[in-house]
Amino acid sequence: MSLFEAADAIGLMTFSISGFLMGVRKGLDILGIVIAAFLTALGGGVIRDVIVGHTPIAFTQSTVLLFVVAGIILALILKLHTKKQPERFSIFILMDSIGLVAFAITGALVGIEAEFNLFGVMLLAFITAVGGGMLRDMMVNEVPIVLTSDFYGTVALLIALLIYICDILDCLGSFTLITIAASTLSLRLVAYYQKWQLPKIGGDL
Amino acid sequence: MSLFEAADAIGLMTFSISGFLMGVRKGLDILGIVIAAFLTALGGGVIRDVIVGHTPIAFTQSTVLLFVVAGIILALILKLHTKKQPERFSIFILMDSIGLVAFAITGALVGIEAEFNLFGVMLLAFITAVGGGMLRDMMVNEVPIVLTSDFYGTVALLIALLIYICDILDCLGSFTLITIAASTLSLRLVAYYQKWQLPKIGGDL
Amino acid sequence: MSLFEAADAIGLMTFSISGFLMGVRKGLDILGIVIAAFLTALGGGVIRDVIVGHTPIAFTQSTVLLFVVAGIILALILKLHTKKQPERFSIFILMDSIGLVAFAITGALVGIEAEFNLFGVMLLAFITAVGGGMLRDMMVNEVPIVLTSDFYGTVALLIALLIYICDILDCLGSFTLITIAASTLSLRLVAYYQKWQLPKIGGDL
Repeated sequence: MSLFEAADAIGLMTFSISGFLMGVRKGLDILGIVIAAFLTALGGGVIRDVIVGHTPIAFTQSTVLLFVVAGIILALILKLHTKKQPERFSIFILMDSIGLVAFAITGALVGIEAEFNLFGVMLLAFITAVGGGMLRDMMVNEVPIVLTSDFYGTVALLIALLIYICDILDCLGSFTLITIAASTLSLRLVAYYQKWQLPKIGGDL
Repeated sequence: MSLFEAADAIGLMTFSISGFLMGVRKGLDILGIVIAAFLTALGGGVIRDVIVGHTPIAFTQSTVLLFVVAGIILALILKLHTKKQPERFSIFILMDSIGLVAFAITGALVGIEAEFNLFGVMLLAFITAVGGGMLRDMMVNEVPIVLTSDFYGTVALLIALLIYICDILDCLGSFTLITIAASTLSLRLVAYYQKWQLPKIGGDL
Repeated sequence: MSLFEAADAIGLMTFSISGFLMGVRKGLDILGIVIAAFLTALGGGVIRDVIVGHTPIAFTQSTVLLFVVAGIILALILKLHTKKQPERFSIFILMDSIGLVAFAITGALVGIEAEFNLFGVMLLAFITAVGGGMLRDMMVNEVPIVLTSDFYGTVALLIALLIYICDILDCLGSFTLITIAASTLSLRLVAYYQKWQLPKIGGDL
């Protein structure tokens, strides 16, 4: 398993746990909780694949499913749903950030391969990384948290921008990808612990 | 018209009526009510077809549309919207359950044909049977009822599992499909009248 | 730039502004506001393209993106978010109506070209014109306004119906399209200023 596959697996597990926790919190039944876990982990990738006209990876490669199930089992064993805000544990933040970066890179590379413009590459990176969580929030009638707070979706867009620039400069390779991953992961972690927020626009509406 | 086509038509009409009733209840105007009816009846199938890369059946086969319209007209003639909880009438429960089973079988078979893994087959069955209702609920800002209560979506997943197993065992045919349909339909009806609920997971979140 | 391309550009800008205003109103951060603007302007077209199996235009033609950005910049320069209900300014209503008509025509023509039935043509026109706004409303947990009030989505459906009839009568050309555009635009403006509403269906549910 390469470094990147490991990062991807960590993302699947963490996103699955975050869907699980939201499901419990919203009083869903067991079916609803499982669906929330799968949707959060796989929803973004399925939308991305449908947009570019591929068969969703989750439907043919069963290994990704194992990590989602592993996330649910882990959450149950650790009884995460009985703990206070497990999403704020340092280990969860780290794993979630690794997933964010890994998913955004996957999405951006799919966009590059499909020869999309900058907007398309950014959208695919954003949807892959954040789309599952947005679907989860919309499903349980929350305004997607990524739209209102935190320096999170911005990281996915930044990754797409850097990859797009590297592609134009013809220097996209393992080394640049690792550099992009390491620097944006650090940025995300700094942003979290420094409590960075994007500004809002005040209005009288 | 085969038995299966009849079941499918019953499903289209019932789902259309359930969308109609939700639209009236939420104070939508006539356009909104009609859209809610079409979305509930056809939304799941359109998503399924888009995922597997087919042209949505509803866009080329006009007969399915007739059943949706028939559902709306039936609801108007019977003035269902003036009645108290028509969704709980025995005849509605029976027709809705027939639709659930028929739609789940269609979805699972599309997944088998596309050579998806178990997850893909289950997801297509679930989306076909329940996706329209979930879209309807999300559109009017309800948490999809299938996620919180009742033994409903589980039936679709069970159907997909059985069909997947039959396919592996190479015994998928009219006889097994009818057996699966009859047994899961009975299961759904027993579950409804016995008020089965999936357990929830308590938490301190 | 043809008349139609100009109408399309006006639509992109106006829809972008309407997404921007909704984002500010709902307290989204800058990222959320920008996403709301892009989603409102481009979301309908992306869904349409995915349904018919095309690569979304927005991912390959960068000019459409410029108009979305122009909308955001215009809203910022004019400080529209500090004004009271800028969506009700006459100029906004006119531009928004032009966009509605232009988008609905595009969507209907895509449906005609894909040889869809009347339902498919109407759905594509509706999604292209109104889908972005519905996604915007669903994302911030509002019941899509097009479902509850105003004579708006109906215009898109009417345009699709007229184009479908013209296609069957084999008289679809620049002249008929301009006639359809002019008459439905007038209809929409009359409907707005006369405060037309579609009837609702009362119920005791």
